[in-house]
Amino acid sequence: MVYEIIEGGGVTSATGFVAGVAQAAIKKAGRYDLALIYSIVPAEGAGVFTQNVFRAAPVTISQQHLAQGRVRGIVVNSGCANACTGQQGNLDAQKMAGTVAEVLGCQTQEILVASTGVIGVNLPMDKVITGIRQAGSELSAANGALAARAIMTTDTVPKEIAIQYTYDGKRIRVGGMAKGSGMIHPNMATMLSFITTDAAVTGHCLQAALYKAVSQSFNMVTVDGDTSTNDSLLVLANGQAKNTLIDNTNTPAYQAFVEALSYVCTELAKMIARDGEGATKLMEVKVINAPTPKDAKLGAKAIASSNLVKAALFGEDANWGRIVCALGYSGAVFKPELVDVYLGDLLVARDGGGLVFDEDKAAAILQDKNIGITVDLKQGDAEAIAWGCDLTYDYVKINGDYRT
Amino acid sequence: MVYEIIEGGGVTSATGFVAGVAQAAIKKAGRYDLALIYSIVPAEGAGVFTQNVFRAAPVTISQQHLAQGRVRGIVVNSGCANACTGQQGNLDAQKMAGTVAEVLGCQTQEILVASTGVIGVNLPMDKVITGIRQAGSELSAANGALAARAIMTTDTVPKEIAIQYTYDGKRIRVGGMAKGSGMIHPNMATMLSFITTDAAVTGHCLQAALYKAVSQSFNMVTVDGDTSTNDSLLVLANGQAKNTLIDNTNTPAYQAFVEALSYVCTELAKMIARDGEGATKLMEVKVINAPTPKDAKLGAKAIASSNLVKAALFGEDANWGRIVCALGYSGAVFKPELVDVYLGDLLVARDGGGLVFDEDKAAAILQDKNIGITVDLKQGDAEAIAWGCDLTYDYVKINGDYRT
Repeated sequence: MVYEIIEGGGVTSATGFVAGVAQAAIKKAGRYDLALIYSIVPAEGAGVFTQNVFRAAPVTISQQHLAQGRVRGIVVNSGCANACTGQQGNLDAQKMAGTVAEVLGCQTQEILVASTGVIGVNLPMDKVITGIRQAGSELSAANGALAARAIMTTDTVPKEIAIQYTYDGKRIRVGGMAKGSGMIHPNMATMLSFITTDAAVTGHCLQAALYKAVSQSFNMVTVDGDTSTNDSLLVLANGQAKNTLIDNTNTPAYQAFVEALSYVCTELAKMIARDGEGATKLMEVKVINAPTPKDAKLGAKAIASSNLVKAALFGEDANWGRIVCALGYSGAVFKPELVDVYLGDLLVARDGGGLVFDEDKAAAILQDKNIGITVDLKQGDAEAIAWGCDLTYDYVKINGDYRT
Repeated sequence: MVYEIIEGGGVTSATGFVAGVAQAAIKKAGRYDLALIYSIVPAEGAGVFTQNVFRAAPVTISQQHLAQGRVRGIVVNSGCANACTGQQGNLDAQKMAGTVAEVLGCQTQEILVASTGVIGVNLPMDKVITGIRQAGSELSAANGALAARAIMTTDTVPKEIAIQYTYDGKRIRVGGMAKGSGMIHPNMATMLSFITTDAAVTGHCLQAALYKAVSQSFNMVTVDGDTSTNDSLLVLANGQAKNTLIDNTNTPAYQAFVEALSYVCTELAKMIARDGEGATKLMEVKVINAPTPKDAKLGAKAIASSNLVKAALFGEDANWGRIVCALGYSGAVFKPELVDVYLGDLLVARDGGGLVFDEDKAAAILQDKNIGITVDLKQGDAEAIAWGCDLTYDYVKINGDYRT
């Protein structure tokens, strides 16, 4: 299947989706901090959410609304997470959905809600409601890029992508946007992503495709068992591509759709890693020839998450000892005496031990903005990729005074 | 039981223990980098070691030697970890023990071995052997403090303590030294600690006491399932206090000994946390009224390990949202709507939600070098304490160019 990137594409590239934004001054004035995404017809919805015991009010509300059937849109704000806000938080999240429904003439339970920002502070609902009314009055497919801006917090660049492919003569589009998750480690700040598609797909198949796509993308940078209070990934599919309904996970049409969704998720996940707070480098960790996929994933994630590996990347230090050390405590099953480690394509450790390598070549590889680490376990054929970034002075600076 | 601190005490404070040091130039010339600890009579030994799949050669050798009965001493070097060094590494660690045995006239298997430093590099054995001969020629109880210096890597201060107590008319001493573990998180650099006591205690009771002591101290800052290649905690007990042999874990004498050992372990663990790489503050996280001890431990460790909490402490930011967020992904079982959070004695969140608190008072608490965080789960009576430190620019600096 050929997946073509739509230049400048994003969350409104799929047919029948529009967006609106507002400067609601939720935390600061003068920036976009509220966005609406809307489908011109009812859509199937699916979602993946934080597994944190503390779930923000918008997470709870979105889960409830998804359980009630088809949906129409998403309202999202930055500047306040509406997390740890008790019963008032639930009422506020409900009110956000209700206001959108009122403005756009749909049902409250057809609107999903997301928030990101400071924890433990109630939403300034007057501002939020004003913002929703304004955003709802200017819905347009041209607003995709502004919507990607409106969800940013410490992100330095907006993150969006869209692709298209043709199946059985029908052009299907999948596009989305995301905001970053502080640093890339699972225990960090909020990750939000919203994806739209004009594919005709049942809710069941959409949710299955999303789980599959997320396991290879967002779950390898940030959203997994360890997550923030607000992490949410929402997908809407409105059928406007008029393709034959994808209603069976054992069909080529489903497979093609999963690949497209995975592609979008992976690109957004990599953008998040690359734009980790204070990050200067994207790290792609590949564990190959592992006994099982689980071992490959555990190893890749542990390496990409290690503060010591991250700091070594920032310092451009070819310290492969830290890589094998992280692998060693990852929980992955492997034989240490078989492990080879590559920086880029340079072998720096063989059979679990050091070897003399070209330090100049290593230095050149580490100066790059994209650093590949490959660990060959030589014990099977499973593999996994995880993404991370370096740990920098700026990470500490950004997170030392986030709230104030 | 009254435990009295011995001023300036350390690993040679217990009767019958001596130490020697050398400047062996293993990594750099002009600093102490090799130490011997020796008991004038055979001693019971016990140990706790890294659970990393990659175990350094000295770890393997020490485990083998401990399994073979009584021991006499410990040889330790800094500057090279002798980890990921294959069969040559094992031979070198064995040779270190053998050289000590030759110099001091005991059996090779009576000597335990430890190393810390760069991974994947073979030991410069000529230098190490010369150093062992020198250290072995100047054994003295006066060398405890120098031994504590010889094991330092990125530590800024040596870490040692000794205490004594009287039981049934006999004075018993327990003392030790430690080196830090990079940052305090389990996935960081090597932690080494060596403890000596003149208590008469069986090997079985000594190992049991050590497990108990470690679970409340070192395991709450660094050494646990996630560890470096070299982490080792070794204890020698030589019976020179002439107390009635402690041979039963159900006796008051055993309990008193466990308390003494726990005290020493806890103080050393706190010193490690306080001297975490680049750290400016010691964080003590207490989770109280948890349903089970396991939940309390999980919660306390997750909070103390969170990069976001650590960075907030550095920035002196009263960001309690990050504390509950870490608690939420810790795996601990609790009811979010019951959780209270205190900074020092200042309540900053109640029943899982924010409240208006005195920001000036919070700022004053956060300016202190010792910051207490208490999380009350209000669901049981279990509690646990974990220690950590802040995340600073200097941590990144130190770890950005450790190898070079």
